[in-house]
Amino acid sequence: MNITQPTLLIDTQRCQQNIARMYQKAKENKLELRPHFKTHQSHEVGKWYRAQGVQKITVSSLEMAAYFAQDQWEDITVAFPVNILEIATINQLASKIQLNVLVESMEVVHYLKEHLTHPIGVFIKIDGGTKRTGIPLAQKNEILQLAQQIETSSKMTFCGILTHLGHTYQARSKEQILAITTEIHPLLIALKHFLLPYFPKMMLSVGDTPSCSVLEDWEGIDEIRPGNFVFYDLMQTQIGSCGLHQIGVKMACPIVSKHPDRQELIIYGGGVHFSKDRIEHPEYGTIYGLVCTKNNDLIEGAYLKALSQEHGKVSLSISLFNKYEIGDLIYILPIHSCMTANLMKQYLDENANWIAMMNKVN
Amino acid sequence: MNITQPTLLIDTQRCQQNIARMYQKAKENKLELRPHFKTHQSHEVGKWYRAQGVQKITVSSLEMAAYFAQDQWEDITVAFPVNILEIATINQLASKIQLNVLVESMEVVHYLKEHLTHPIGVFIKIDGGTKRTGIPLAQKNEILQLAQQIETSSKMTFCGILTHLGHTYQARSKEQILAITTEIHPLLIALKHFLLPYFPKMMLSVGDTPSCSVLEDWEGIDEIRPGNFVFYDLMQTQIGSCGLHQIGVKMACPIVSKHPDRQELIIYGGGVHFSKDRIEHPEYGTIYGLVCTKNNDLIEGAYLKALSQEHGKVSLSISLFNKYEIGDLIYILPIHSCMTANLMKQYLDENANWIAMMNKVN
Repeated sequence: MNITQPTLLIDTQRCQQNIARMYQKAKENKLELRPHFKTHQSHEVGKWYRAQGVQKITVSSLEMAAYFAQDQWEDITVAFPVNILEIATINQLASKIQLNVLVESMEVVHYLKEHLTHPIGVFIKIDGGTKRTGIPLAQKNEILQLAQQIETSSKMTFCGILTHLGHTYQARSKEQILAITTEIHPLLIALKHFLLPYFPKMMLSVGDTPSCSVLEDWEGIDEIRPGNFVFYDLMQTQIGSCGLHQIGVKMACPIVSKHPDRQELIIYGGGVHFSKDRIEHPEYGTIYGLVCTKNNDLIEGAYLKALSQEHGKVSLSISLFNKYEIGDLIYILPIHSCMTANLMKQYLDENANWIAMMNKVN
Repeated sequence: MNITQPTLLIDTQRCQQNIARMYQKAKENKLELRPHFKTHQSHEVGKWYRAQGVQKITVSSLEMAAYFAQDQWEDITVAFPVNILEIATINQLASKIQLNVLVESMEVVHYLKEHLTHPIGVFIKIDGGTKRTGIPLAQKNEILQLAQQIETSSKMTFCGILTHLGHTYQARSKEQILAITTEIHPLLIALKHFLLPYFPKMMLSVGDTPSCSVLEDWEGIDEIRPGNFVFYDLMQTQIGSCGLHQIGVKMACPIVSKHPDRQELIIYGGGVHFSKDRIEHPEYGTIYGLVCTKNNDLIEGAYLKALSQEHGKVSLSISLFNKYEIGDLIYILPIHSCMTANLMKQYLDENANWIAMMNKVN
C-alpha cells in the first residue's frame, strides 16, 4: 500500500487484544460489556467485538444507532440525553431494534409517554460528580419518582441507572482513577439498592475507559460501557489507563518541509486530521501528538507541537532531525483517538485493506 | 424546515456581502482576488464568488483542487507545500487545469523537474515571520536560486512569492494587525523588487483574512488569498477583522437538558460539530462559542463553556436560563468557522435549502 496522504493506521491485533482483555474482565466479574462504538464508528471493527461474544452496544447518536442497526446490532443504548426533536427517528429505530435511551427529566419522560409508538428501554442518567449532565446521585427521591413515571407508560421499561464518571479523565495515575471509583461506586450501589425493591430487574451501568481499564473490584455493578479502550491514545496513557503498546491506531503523515534552523518538520496532517485535542506534556508543554516508530516506541524528543488546518509542526532534536527527509512518512500517536477517527473516516490495516467508517464517502 | 440535530446555518446575504466587499476592495486596489476555498468547501458557495467575477481560487489540498475543478474552476493554487508523494495527482490535475503549487526547497524543485508530465505554475512560499513554514524572507539569494532552478524546467513557471502572515491571528485590534503588515509588507515588496529584474512577470501574493479585512494601502501587492472572510467567526471579531453582524454562519443546536442548580444547558452539539477550537474571553475565560439571536446579536452572559464529543455545555445567567426549554434550539456563533464547516459537511440556508460540501455523504 502506497501511503501518500495523512492516514490512520489501525493495528488489528492490538485492537482485538484490547477487546479480548475487556471482554474477559467483564466475564470474570459477571459484568455485561456494552461497549461504546462512537470511538471506532465502523461496521468492520464492530464485527471484532461480535466475534468475541459482544451482543449489546452503546452509541452516541441516533444516526450511529441506525448505522449499526444496519449491521445486525439489535440491542443499542444511545448514551446521550434524549433529544425530543428526533422523536420520529426514535420511533423508527424502536420499531426495528431494542433501543435504549437516557432520560434525566420529567418533561422528557412525559414527552416520550405521549409520543412513543414502539417500546423502548429507558435508563436514568445519573451525575456521579462529573457535572456534565444527569441527575445528581444524591437526589434519590427525584430519581425514584422519575423511574416510577417511566413505568407508567406501556411503551417504556425502566432499565436502571447509568453514569459516566467523566472526571476520571482528570486523573493522572491508576491510584487517582481508583480514588474516584472508590468514592463514587458505593454511592451508586446504594442508590441501586434504594431503587431495587421497586424495580427488581434494574441495572447499574457505568463505563468510562479509565476506570474500566484499571478497576479490579466490580461488586455491585451490572454493566460497563467503555469505548476508547479499543484504540486507547496518549490521553489514556497520561491518565494511567494503558501502556503505549496497547494503543491501536496511529497517524502516518507525509513530511513536506524541513526547517533546520529551528529543527522542525512540517507535515501534511493538521487539525482536520488529528482534531485539536491536546495534552500538557511534562517536558514539551502543550502537544498534539508524539512521534513513534512503526511499533509504537516513542522517539524521544519528537512531538507534534502545533496544528493549523492542514499543517502540522513536529519538533525534533538535531540528531533526529537529520534522519527524516521530505517525502518520508512520520508516525504519530494521537491525543484522542475517538476525535481523530471521527475526522479520518477510515482506517488502513496492516494488510493494506481500508476499513470504512460511518459517513465515509466512497 | 424542521431542525432536529446540530445544524450549520448559513446567511446567504451576509456571505455574499462579505464576498462583494472583498471583491470591491481588491478591484479598487488593483489586486487579484484569489480567495481560499478551504473555508467553505462547497461548489454552491463557490458559485457566489464566480457570480461576483472571481475566476481564480486557492485551496489547501489536491483533493480540494480536484473537487473544485469538477465545477469548472480552471486556475487553482494549492496553498500547501508540495507533497511529493502525491505527484500522480499533481500530474493528473495539471493535465486538466492551470495548477499552481508552493515550493520552499531545492529537493522538491528537483523532484518536480524530474517527475512532472504537464506544466504547472510554482510559487515560492515565504515565511513572513509566522515561523510555520516557508523560506525566511531575509534569505534573498536562496530564494533567487530556487526561482532560477524552477525556471530551468520546461514544465514549471515561476509565478512569484507567496506568504501567509499567520501571526496576524495573534492580533487583538485593527492597530495590531496593521502593525504587522506595516512591518512585513515593505520587506516582501523589497524582496519582490530584488527578484523582478530576473522575473518581470512574477507576483507578490499575500492573504490572511485579518490583514485583507482591515488594510487600506495595498501598494506593491499583486494578489490576495483570504478565505475565512466569507463567513468570519468569533476569532475574527476578537482579532479585529470584522463585526458580529458580518458573521455568516452559526450553529443551531437542540437543548436536551437543563441544570438549574448551576444554570447550565446541555445541548446536542459537541467537538464533532464545532471542533475544539477555543478563545479566551475577557469575562468568561475559555469559550467554544457565544450564544446569539437569529440575527447574530449576542445574548449577554450566555456562552459555550465546554465540549465533549457530542455534548455542549452552555452557561447562562439565571434570568436567561428560565427562557430556554428542552427541545428549543439555541444559536451559537462558532470560534473558527473553517473548522466547524469542515466537520458539519453541509449548510442550511434561510430558504431551507441544504448546501452540500466536499465529502458530504448523500
